[in-house]
Amino acid sequence: MSEIREQVNRTLESATPALYAALSPLGRRMFYPADIPVQAQEARQTTFNGTIGIFTDGRGNAVPLPSMDAVLTLSEDDRNRAFLYSPVPGFEELRTLWGDWQRDDMADAPATCLPFATAGLAHALSIIADLFGGEGRAIAIPTPFWGNYRQNFELRTGAVVRSAPAYHEGRFNPRAIEEALADLPSGEPAVAMLNFPSNPGGYSPTREEREELKRSLLRIADQRPLVTVHDDAYNELVYEAGVPKRSFFWDMVGTHEQLIPIKVDGATKEFAFFGGRVGFLTFGLDLDATTTEALESKLKSISRATIGSPVATSQVILLQALRSGKAREEVEQIRAIAAERYQAIQPALAALDPTLLRLLPFNSGFFVLLEMPAELGLDPHAVRKHLIEHYSTGIVSISPRYLRIATCSVAADALPELVARVERGVRELAGRR
Amino acid sequence: MSEIREQVNRTLESATPALYAALSPLGRRMFYPADIPVQAQEARQTTFNGTIGIFTDGRGNAVPLPSMDAVLTLSEDDRNRAFLYSPVPGFEELRTLWGDWQRDDMADAPATCLPFATAGLAHALSIIADLFGGEGRAIAIPTPFWGNYRQNFELRTGAVVRSAPAYHEGRFNPRAIEEALADLPSGEPAVAMLNFPSNPGGYSPTREEREELKRSLLRIADQRPLVTVHDDAYNELVYEAGVPKRSFFWDMVGTHEQLIPIKVDGATKEFAFFGGRVGFLTFGLDLDATTTEALESKLKSISRATIGSPVATSQVILLQALRSGKAREEVEQIRAIAAERYQAIQPALAALDPTLLRLLPFNSGFFVLLEMPAELGLDPHAVRKHLIEHYSTGIVSISPRYLRIATCSVAADALPELVARVERGVRELAGRR
Repeated sequence: MSEIREQVNRTLESATPALYAALSPLGRRMFYPADIPVQAQEARQTTFNGTIGIFTDGRGNAVPLPSMDAVLTLSEDDRNRAFLYSPVPGFEELRTLWGDWQRDDMADAPATCLPFATAGLAHALSIIADLFGGEGRAIAIPTPFWGNYRQNFELRTGAVVRSAPAYHEGRFNPRAIEEALADLPSGEPAVAMLNFPSNPGGYSPTREEREELKRSLLRIADQRPLVTVHDDAYNELVYEAGVPKRSFFWDMVGTHEQLIPIKVDGATKEFAFFGGRVGFLTFGLDLDATTTEALESKLKSISRATIGSPVATSQVILLQALRSGKAREEVEQIRAIAAERYQAIQPALAALDPTLLRLLPFNSGFFVLLEMPAELGLDPHAVRKHLIEHYSTGIVSISPRYLRIATCSVAADALPELVARVERGVRELAGRR
Repeated sequence: MSEIREQVNRTLESATPALYAALSPLGRRMFYPADIPVQAQEARQTTFNGTIGIFTDGRGNAVPLPSMDAVLTLSEDDRNRAFLYSPVPGFEELRTLWGDWQRDDMADAPATCLPFATAGLAHALSIIADLFGGEGRAIAIPTPFWGNYRQNFELRTGAVVRSAPAYHEGRFNPRAIEEALADLPSGEPAVAMLNFPSNPGGYSPTREEREELKRSLLRIADQRPLVTVHDDAYNELVYEAGVPKRSFFWDMVGTHEQLIPIKVDGATKEFAFFGGRVGFLTFGLDLDATTTEALESKLKSISRATIGSPVATSQVILLQALRSGKAREEVEQIRAIAAERYQAIQPALAALDPTLLRLLPFNSGFFVLLEMPAELGLDPHAVRKHLIEHYSTGIVSISPRYLRIATCSVAADALPELVARVERGVRELAGRR
């Protein structure tokens, strides 16, 4: 078995030295052994196929329970796919269609690996954390950030989160990652989290900010192997005309040999399929077949050891949208509702008393982030509980002094009242009624 | 945050000292922080609820894409559940119904924790590996065993697999785990894998063997905290009248204070829902509410950091069966087909030339395991390839000299021919045609 590992590691080391250098000890250890899934694949054309532990009718067809089968309306092929195992990297058809979806109408899209299906975006992140995290590894994340990044990288793998403010004086800070890594010894690999539109911030950088961010990341890559993780959960939910919608991932692909851009996206938010758990990992690298296989050996072994295989049922449901020719239109309908809510909340945000609540940059995504001035001395968690108890209003509190409003789960006409209640609650606790 | 961790760890240490002693460093580190899911839960009754990042119509209802919604026939409530997030431990209704399903018609079933939903059985195993594995921890697994155990525990967490033969001279060896742990210093915690019906073995112990196994495990628990992992993937697929069907997990619950039995089961094989990825972890411990919460804090934090939340869509599909009142009958129909295949393969197995292939104990499950006598000097992987190329026959090869036939994916009338071809291929390679 360790022969396979040696070969996989040697291939990666020679074809993608920066990626190899950035692998965690676990990332170096993992490889996909030639056991049951590989053996089943090799035997798939046999007349008498007794390889795999799926229960079929003996001719390759699923035998679902009638009570479960009854709720799914699918072709016979799709029904078999939905009830039997998915390949560990996901269904080939879905991976291809998702790659097309990511590219949309891009002219001259750069080559990347095929998207690798995961059990939702958190699982894609956990595979990246396993591959590139590990004891002591620096993970740069601009603050404020989604708490699960810390759980996933730091608590779980022992990596060390380094952060710098995402906003300086109310403006996006394109050098946050560079600042966070400034004193990391040259040559030491690092991971950078990039999340646009952001959570909890609701921000996407402008064209000029993207240029500056790109230059900053390239300077880091001059110093060290840099894995840029592009968390595109809220892909293209951008509401201001001048702000680029296309993922910043595409700006970074192929720009520096020490830079490894990885796109994390999926159906969760982009297709409003929260419960389905279909995510994707896409490496922004142009690899030959042998190197692709070596990289997938790593990905497959971690995925198989954590979840077995990704959800077939949800992949088949997502396929219906991607095959329908209507996905673009249907997704746009959801984006239009999100944009309507964005417009509906603007007057209320503009009217906020800045001595109580300050709006952080907001032009996209699912969330509005408000900051309470430090001089108020208010604990955001106490504010949150007060709003539930006295104003029947739910928001998320984030240390040290942020409140996050999810516009995605509130109707447009309720948003002004929600904002007004948040302000009233803060005013009351600040002793200024 | 570390206050919550301290409290969780102190609770477990005082209420379940053996479990606490068996936790890995990662298991001690993990806890569920009071962030978004907890905050969303606290705000669930508010009029203006802007907590959670799900896209809804503003009144809590999902807004699925029409092309995806069209293939699912569900009540409005279930449709919302299928498209929105599941709670991290799974839907309460499903957890309760699965707990009932596990107990079936058991009189006086002992108290256990509520089943905790996972993304399939491999994910349940990976949570156990994270909680109780880790560098140097002993994992006793009788040989031959499913390769993914090694990937999951050893390669991923650094635990050390210790094994002893599951069969001695063609008979089940109830002391395999005790033998594997014999020289482990007293007091050092260990994990034991128990898999009945087994894979790749296709065996379930008799009543006497279970008694002996139980006594053996209790002797180990006299020496050390022992986590017994009951992999019940093939639950109750037992074809011989005298052999107990009920999970051996129930024999161990509540028998020793140093013993922590954990049941791993799910819809994958038991409900022929391979693609759905619904598994469960059930701790065979009778815990009070505070201790249950502390244990779930560990489980939820690992699950959230690896997959976010379990698959809602598949849980809802599984719920249809469990609510229908027909699950028992529908599952029995699949078991009846499996039993028919078991009968159909018997004459072919009985006719095997024992100088070429020896049948290992087989009375249950999805697989037949054949051993080639050592004196033939045949490489099982070479035999496998030969069977594909010259006999259009697919089987799984396992080192050092095993061949596994999956009866679950072959029709009853094809099984005799499949066995005959395997034997012909082995005879040919043994130079005896």
